[in-house]
Amino acid sequence: MTARGQFITIEGTEGVGKSTQLGNASDTLRQLGVSHIVTREPGGTPMAESIRKLLLAPREEPVNEITELLLMFAARAQHLHGRILPALESGQWVLCDRFTDATFAYQGGGRGVPRERIAVLENLVQGEFRPDHVILLDAPVETGMTRARHRGDLDRFEQEAVPFFQRIRETYLARAKKAPGRYHIIQAGAPLEQVSGEVRGLIATLVAGSGAGSPPVSVR
Amino acid sequence: MTARGQFITIEGTEGVGKSTQLGNASDTLRQLGVSHIVTREPGGTPMAESIRKLLLAPREEPVNEITELLLMFAARAQHLHGRILPALESGQWVLCDRFTDATFAYQGGGRGVPRERIAVLENLVQGEFRPDHVILLDAPVETGMTRARHRGDLDRFEQEAVPFFQRIRETYLARAKKAPGRYHIIQAGAPLEQVSGEVRGLIATLVAGSGAGSPPVSVR
Repeated sequence: MTARGQFITIEGTEGVGKSTQLGNASDTLRQLGVSHIVTREPGGTPMAESIRKLLLAPREEPVNEITELLLMFAARAQHLHGRILPALESGQWVLCDRFTDATFAYQGGGRGVPRERIAVLENLVQGEFRPDHVILLDAPVETGMTRARHRGDLDRFEQEAVPFFQRIRETYLARAKKAPGRYHIIQAGAPLEQVSGEVRGLIATLVAGSGAGSPPVSVR
Repeated sequence: MTARGQFITIEGTEGVGKSTQLGNASDTLRQLGVSHIVTREPGGTPMAESIRKLLLAPREEPVNEITELLLMFAARAQHLHGRILPALESGQWVLCDRFTDATFAYQGGGRGVPRERIAVLENLVQGEFRPDHVILLDAPVETGMTRARHRGDLDRFEQEAVPFFQRIRETYLARAKKAPGRYHIIQAGAPLEQVSGEVRGLIATLVAGSGAGSPPVSVR
């Protein structure tokens, strides 16, 4: 019988290097011989990607905060049942760029949607399902915003002001502190090689702890 | 101070004549001098209409039932806050082709989503808000299906089999029987002139009871 895969999410505010570290984590898993998929939220299936487009498109019509929240969880339900759970059940690991922590951070901390409302939807869509491990890339908001601006494509969320991202960062950190065994805070403001090394080390530790992968090799 | 408008929804299975009776109800309100808007669910604002398209498009990817439910309520939140409530608060009446009763009937009765899950979302999106009056056009499922097929454009919902629509009809009727003061069951299998006459009579009664509109005139 194949053991169930591990569900690992990467979280953080804009410009902290999520994409880079997602690629780095995936490379590490590959080197360790762990079969896995890389995916993202909102999105991950054709229908969920269509919902993502609706969510991120700049538009004149003001988007109600509950509408935004429900769309986020609609995409999540589709992604979870159509892609994440089937992969995990087949023994693959899943690396995911953002998940429900992002909803608590962005819609909750950022937009002020009461946490209880988000929790109701989390339970409706996920039941007891939660990430096995969350890699939180943490950096001062100004650092990330500068990097995101240099990329040039600020979407509807990224057009928000700095205090908004400050609240998001604080929400992430507060959640991480409540469950330190599941959340791994990485100082993303450090030099890239250092950040990448920490992510590789963390992934190697998780693989070693799970008994998955080929016989261990050094990835440092 | 302008009195708040009345929120009236028209419900029923496929082909029972909702569009015709919506037009008829609107004509009646106009003749009685009641300012109103006509709208529909899912939809009613540009963003909600985009969500409607996502919901109704035939697609290869199986749509998770919770995804469908969340999209329906996402469109509803947008419609409610962006269009329905502002109209009602300005004193206009709102005639709406389907609302949350349709979710209980289609996703609940039809697809078997537990009623409690729908109720959680109803409360999240609507709080205490409910239609003031529901016009339920009721007819044997076979009658409606034949009419819908003649229209030629069966969408994803309409491709479902007869027992599905049977459960929908039963759910509508069960809800109507629990709150007979708010639900008005009209035998939609009767000759068109009779159905239209009953809808006109009902609207006239509601207008008379509300004190809205111009000095009363006969609309029979």
